[in-house]
Amino acid sequence: MPYRAPLSDLRFLMHHVVGFAQVAATGRFAEATPETVEAVLTEAGRLAAEVLAPVNRAGDTHPARLENGVVRTSPGYAEAYGAMAAGGWVAITAGADHGGMGLPLTLASAVNDMFSGACLSLQLNPLLTQGQIEALEHHASDDLKATYLPKLVSGEWNGTMNLTEPQAGSDVGALRSKAEPNGDGSYAVSGQKIYITWGDSDFQANTIHLVLARLPDGAPGTAGISLFLVPKFLPDADGNPGARNSLSVVSLEHKLGIHGSPTCVMQFDGAKGWLVGAPHKGMAAMFTMMNNARLGVGLQGVGVAEAAYQQACDYAMTRTQGRTADPATPSIIGHADVRRMLATMKAQVFSARAIGLSCAVAIDMAYATGDAGWKARAAFLTPIAKAYGTDVGVAVASEGVQIHGGMGFIEETGAAQFLRDARITPIYEGTNGIQAMDLVARKMADNGEAAFRLIREIEMGAQSARAALPDVAEDVWQACESLREATEALLTQDLTDRFAGAVPYLRAFALVLGSHFHLKSALVDGGTGPRAALARVAIKRLLPEHSGLLAQTRIGAEDLYALTPEDFAA
Amino acid sequence: MPYRAPLSDLRFLMHHVVGFAQVAATGRFAEATPETVEAVLTEAGRLAAEVLAPVNRAGDTHPARLENGVVRTSPGYAEAYGAMAAGGWVAITAGADHGGMGLPLTLASAVNDMFSGACLSLQLNPLLTQGQIEALEHHASDDLKATYLPKLVSGEWNGTMNLTEPQAGSDVGALRSKAEPNGDGSYAVSGQKIYITWGDSDFQANTIHLVLARLPDGAPGTAGISLFLVPKFLPDADGNPGARNSLSVVSLEHKLGIHGSPTCVMQFDGAKGWLVGAPHKGMAAMFTMMNNARLGVGLQGVGVAEAAYQQACDYAMTRTQGRTADPATPSIIGHADVRRMLATMKAQVFSARAIGLSCAVAIDMAYATGDAGWKARAAFLTPIAKAYGTDVGVAVASEGVQIHGGMGFIEETGAAQFLRDARITPIYEGTNGIQAMDLVARKMADNGEAAFRLIREIEMGAQSARAALPDVAEDVWQACESLREATEALLTQDLTDRFAGAVPYLRAFALVLGSHFHLKSALVDGGTGPRAALARVAIKRLLPEHSGLLAQTRIGAEDLYALTPEDFAA
Repeated sequence: MPYRAPLSDLRFLMHHVVGFAQVAATGRFAEATPETVEAVLTEAGRLAAEVLAPVNRAGDTHPARLENGVVRTSPGYAEAYGAMAAGGWVAITAGADHGGMGLPLTLASAVNDMFSGACLSLQLNPLLTQGQIEALEHHASDDLKATYLPKLVSGEWNGTMNLTEPQAGSDVGALRSKAEPNGDGSYAVSGQKIYITWGDSDFQANTIHLVLARLPDGAPGTAGISLFLVPKFLPDADGNPGARNSLSVVSLEHKLGIHGSPTCVMQFDGAKGWLVGAPHKGMAAMFTMMNNARLGVGLQGVGVAEAAYQQACDYAMTRTQGRTADPATPSIIGHADVRRMLATMKAQVFSARAIGLSCAVAIDMAYATGDAGWKARAAFLTPIAKAYGTDVGVAVASEGVQIHGGMGFIEETGAAQFLRDARITPIYEGTNGIQAMDLVARKMADNGEAAFRLIREIEMGAQSARAALPDVAEDVWQACESLREATEALLTQDLTDRFAGAVPYLRAFALVLGSHFHLKSALVDGGTGPRAALARVAIKRLLPEHSGLLAQTRIGAEDLYALTPEDFAA
Repeated sequence: MPYRAPLSDLRFLMHHVVGFAQVAATGRFAEATPETVEAVLTEAGRLAAEVLAPVNRAGDTHPARLENGVVRTSPGYAEAYGAMAAGGWVAITAGADHGGMGLPLTLASAVNDMFSGACLSLQLNPLLTQGQIEALEHHASDDLKATYLPKLVSGEWNGTMNLTEPQAGSDVGALRSKAEPNGDGSYAVSGQKIYITWGDSDFQANTIHLVLARLPDGAPGTAGISLFLVPKFLPDADGNPGARNSLSVVSLEHKLGIHGSPTCVMQFDGAKGWLVGAPHKGMAAMFTMMNNARLGVGLQGVGVAEAAYQQACDYAMTRTQGRTADPATPSIIGHADVRRMLATMKAQVFSARAIGLSCAVAIDMAYATGDAGWKARAAFLTPIAKAYGTDVGVAVASEGVQIHGGMGFIEETGAAQFLRDARITPIYEGTNGIQAMDLVARKMADNGEAAFRLIREIEMGAQSARAALPDVAEDVWQACESLREATEALLTQDLTDRFAGAVPYLRAFALVLGSHFHLKSALVDGGTGPRAALARVAIKRLLPEHSGLLAQTRIGAEDLYALTPEDFAA
């Protein structure tokens, strides 16, 4: 069976678990009426299943290619994208003044989850445009906004992020691209950028690049970086694509996955651009864009995991091998080990989706209320949503291959494509190692206040579930106490020691938080329905991993540096 | 830097950790003198690094293809294979009476580890031949032995295993292939087989298929299956390839990885074949072959993990990004999180290699002495070596991609190839789920005797390490006690409950056993050298996972069956 939009889980999570009602109750998001929310979910789900999913294989088997400097996209992509743009799906969070719907990020996140599950390579195109719109809304001049936002919001043009250079990956401050003032308010931008997703497209009339570069008086490092808007075609007096700017696609990367998404090496040769935000403040502007893109990537992991889970589940329902423990179920889903794989996959998808949507709610609330508590919560949840969501994407896609057995290794099945596509998500928009370091350093620079507020919430959730579900509530409580102790210990460590346990700490936090959402879900389900059964799987099978992870957060970095570089190479 | 043979770890493990001296001391393996062992390791290491590794990328980028019914292999494969065969490397364990060296499987396993790390796709060719030689040595008639063994041992011909049919994967008993007596002692074998590794080759003069099929009077299920030898070319009176047999390669699979290894769909249309072993006893003969192939596949995981680790380590030594915690190490290996990844990768490779070689020692000792204790130990360790070795292969290759960041996702780097290649190993030769079920059912049908004997050995190892390394010795002891309790509990469960926790149980056993070998290694290292430092990483960072795993072995299957198939699909 092809991809089905997970509408029932999305509705359930939004309305019963992550508190979307608070968002809809704000003046800022008054448009998000129950009718609108339902219409958006249903229609996006239909588009995902009927328009996007059908082109997913073609993107893999017929990758985007470069012909005479022009990107030729995969078969069916132009039409599928056309349907997304025509339906107004490119940027539903964009403000109404430039043609957007001003809807909450929570709702957009549910849509991104479905679109990326259906076709990750194509969904990347609007995802990047969404980030650019947000950066322009917050930092661009009114002139730039007026010229660019309407065409980005409508999807006629697409937006890119140009950060990385060969010597400047995670260390953005090492970049060498330059911008010289032209004297007319514009700048001449020069340099080479790599890993530019959708750096060109043959179904959009213009591609707008946001480029990090250094002004002549820019200091070394990140403090001297500015952000520039550099269009492929310079808009003419009517705002339509005019003269070709001096930039080009040098080559496309040959990648493990997301073959339908052109990953470009871009060359800027004194290309005309305009400053976005203040000089030397490019990193701040880029971070606006990047933070929500991080959540977006987390939901890509969730989306691909959902799709991989569905396909594995369909396979397990129809494939017959051997006698199962359950005579009513002769297919392999009747085998305990296959059932264990599917149940833990489903439980992980639910946890990761709940964390992602809960992060989106916090971002919406921070935006709508300006409240510092919501801001801190959003900032704390973002790296967890990104890293855990994408780790789940890879793990579930890999388990999906396993459930298919030999068939999973054959490309035509499609199970392997999910694994190959998902594998980029723990890397881009900041590797998951970077996310974990961000969590234990910057996001805990408040003395752990945001962390402890979440921990308190989990404890209260466990308390209130004790009467109905004493067994699993106690498990969540105990795990949360271990998380509290580990958090306290972490705050006494220096940064190197924290970094040595950062990835395990982030994962442990996600496991406890995901169990908390499962527990909440079990209560709504009356403690006995299928959601309660799934919660039991999550809490009894996935949560116990937290203790091994937290053990690693206490030991610091000493053992790692006891091995010299020579020992590693020996 | 290209692949380097891990000679120092192999020597150390054989001579100081897994007890190879016992093997060399038997009369059966008197040939395995210290000089021979050292010459084999050194020369195989040289061949792996200088001849096999250089063709590994070409196999990926120029997959084997089918042209007019003939398999055309990847560039350089014929020459590299020629060097393997010329050096006598195809089957060093084969008996001297047919041209082999009669060397221990432990030594052959070390060689397979290196060859598969250098070029997995090509190494599969001799690995399958080795299995066939073993099956023929044990079960074939003297005539068949005389005709086929010398050419298989020399590598002039290759051997395949034909088990799987579309409807009969893990459930071999469901096969439909048939064999009818021709009346002259030969049989007409008909049927279609899938996933036939190296089902044809353009650099070997003949391909010999071992085919499972049912005789006219064969009962349904596995009890009615017989094994047949079916050559591509029927040997003439001089034993040279003569008339073409009626079998053909229908197509090659398009796979996620191991592109250089042709995976064939084979059609047998009344092909002439000969019975191997007794009628209807094909499964027993096939299991002889499969058991050691399972260990071989476990070592493939180790080999690929080693290669992926080396490449990631090289990258981390040269790539500079950001300021590290260690001023003497400006490259990213100076970062705590990168160092954590590399250290845990290295520790896992060591554990998996130790388990694999220790299993090989048990097989050698069982063969040399006929002792029931060694046999039971070999049988118990085989599924652990297969599943843990291959899980480590995938996990380490995936972490290798992660260490490369964006570069890891670019195919030219080669990091992604390791992940794609490794991904088949948890699937073929019995999925890792099948291995785990084998462990908790068949391999514990002795009331856990083999398990408890190993547990006792681990306890004694921890006891004897207490004086020198009290902290880590205590960790291993405690983990082993948990394993003992979980094993006792498992033995009280019915099979469905055992199967629900089988995969976690196998992994927990491997973690404890791997830590035991690390502890032993730390003692040899005087408790303070680099091996002791690595042991500390294994015991403090990897071992703690056991508690979460063992929690899953106690809960049985009830939670899984509380979810109905409809709940999974919802």
